Amino acid sequence: MTTFSVTVLGSSSAIPTLTRNLSAHLLNVNERLFLIDCAEGTQMQIRRYHIHFQRIRSIFISHLHGDHYFGLIGLLTSFHLLGRKDELHLYGPPMLEEIIDIQLKASQTKLLYPLKIHPVFDDSYRQIYEDDFLTVNAFPLLHSVPTVGFIFREKKRERKLRKEILGRIPVPIKEMTKIKKGEDFIDATGKIYKNDLLTTDPPKQRSYAYCSDTSYNEFIIPFIQHCDLLYHEATFMQDMIAAARDKLHATAQEAATIAKKANVKKLLLGHFSARYDDLDPLLQEAKTIFPETYLAEDGKVFNI
Amino acid sequence: MTTFSVTVLGSSSAIPTLTRNLSAHLLNVNERLFLIDCAEGTQMQIRRYHIHFQRIRSIFISHLHGDHYFGLIGLLTSFHLLGRKDELHLYGPPMLEEIIDIQLKASQTKLLYPLKIHPVFDDSYRQIYEDDFLTVNAFPLLHSVPTVGFIFREKKRERKLRKEILGRIPVPIKEMTKIKKGEDFIDATGKIYKNDLLTTDPPKQRSYAYCSDTSYNEFIIPFIQHCDLLYHEATFMQDMIAAARDKLHATAQEAATIAKKANVKKLLLGHFSARYDDLDPLLQEAKTIFPETYLAEDGKVFNI
Repeated sequence: MTTFSVTVLGSSSAIPTLTRNLSAHLLNVNERLFLIDCAEGTQMQIRRYHIHFQRIRSIFISHLHGDHYFGLIGLLTSFHLLGRKDELHLYGPPMLEEIIDIQLKASQTKLLYPLKIHPVFDDSYRQIYEDDFLTVNAFPLLHSVPTVGFIFREKKRERKLRKEILGRIPVPIKEMTKIKKGEDFIDATGKIYKNDLLTTDPPKQRSYAYCSDTSYNEFIIPFIQHCDLLYHEATFMQDMIAAARDKLHATAQEAATIAKKANVKKLLLGHFSARYDDLDPLLQEAKTIFPETYLAEDGKVFNI
Repeated sequence: MTTFSVTVLGSSSAIPTLTRNLSAHLLNVNERLFLIDCAEGTQMQIRRYHIHFQRIRSIFISHLHGDHYFGLIGLLTSFHLLGRKDELHLYGPPMLEEIIDIQLKASQTKLLYPLKIHPVFDDSYRQIYEDDFLTVNAFPLLHSVPTVGFIFREKKRERKLRKEILGRIPVPIKEMTKIKKGEDFIDATGKIYKNDLLTTDPPKQRSYAYCSDTSYNEFIIPFIQHCDLLYHEATFMQDMIAAARDKLHATAQEAATIAKKANVKKLLLGHFSARYDDLDPLLQEAKTIFPETYLAEDGKVFNI
């Protein structure tokens, strides 16, 4: 099984605490690294958790509140100072480019590596990234500034060949590709071998949804439905619902309700208000609605 | 004796390491707090060292390389989120205002407290700050972008009254102020009391000089002469003099030479390249020239 894991680099909202950094998650898909949000201190967290950070290929920024991106310029600069040559792709709100540019200009820095900035708009569900293994779609969240969620989905993989059967049939190499795609095989005599005799189902496509800052919003359900791991912010508990509404954040109970309605496999709570020293009450509140809930604590790794 | 101390919040150059944060110093003058430089992670360091950070009144930024100011926007935002009402004064390169403005605009933040930004130019030695106790002057350093050093000097205090003498002489209250300023006293009969009979010298004026990023530069000597504590960068050891010249940084030996020529009392080395795990060789190199040398390690406090 190839790697598909999420490392939590920060779990605090608004201000950092002594034990919780601000938002950033690292997604490892088959040893390709994707950084999602990049608050102040993220480069220190990457170092602390021994992540080989030059392997990060793409960075996704959900919105331009500081607790989600103030560490970006420091990370981009460190890549440069450490001699990075590989292209880096950055996906985020349109204003991000201007903010980066002015800071590079002020320090008279010309990055040694190509930085490709892709503006992400918050007006619809749309694909923003694709490679051999993965697609990423963005979709609007309900927050006080333009904010998007992201869903990372493995692509459909090829069917697995049943070598014990294929070893006994004279299949030309060039036919193998078609068989892996699900086609039947017809041999020189015209005999048909049904594909499900020759192959088994491919590994399941795994998926990870990241919903950073959002009020309770059922409109996102179609976009995250059935995903393996849903990260959903839970800034407050339900007794602070008024504060949550006011600041366009969600409660643990609301996050769990979304998880349940979207039929996801597991829920990860994060973006906790600094008022909570002990996070267990938030976990218990969510679990009454959605038992498969976990806390996004700094340094934790979730294998999907 | 009132407080006059420096707390080191970061000591690494360019990139943070697991044990060394990037540049920031906190100066405490009579319980008024001044922050000097504010690299990424400074707000976490302030928290770690239990500094009551809403007491910071003024922030001084030496130049716009990220390892000296990327933590500023996060700190300004945290002040706001924590309900600061007190005015904050920010002194730094002219472009700083634009960089802050664009980030506040992107997050749709209107700060709850007055932020007064004072541009500091690097063309001459000039006073940029004054209060009842202290003056701050800026002066140009020799670096790859406009950079200033700062010298914080206590103001001359009033002379101390010798109460055992004054108790025996009928001095009107309104004359006391003049005596504290050094004037003689003439009583109703015309008798002259010389001031040095009535008073003793005021406490010594203490001073702290901060030279963040600079190549070896004797032009700064007049500005820092005789100061009690000189912080001078020492990015490299002397065997890396070529790198130091190339990047407009200084070596430990050079910092010590400046300290000696400027006749300062103590020298504090910092801004160490991440290549040095063990800093003792830098300390020893400097001590051969200037014995009163110390290492600016994170969390260390220097009382002046």
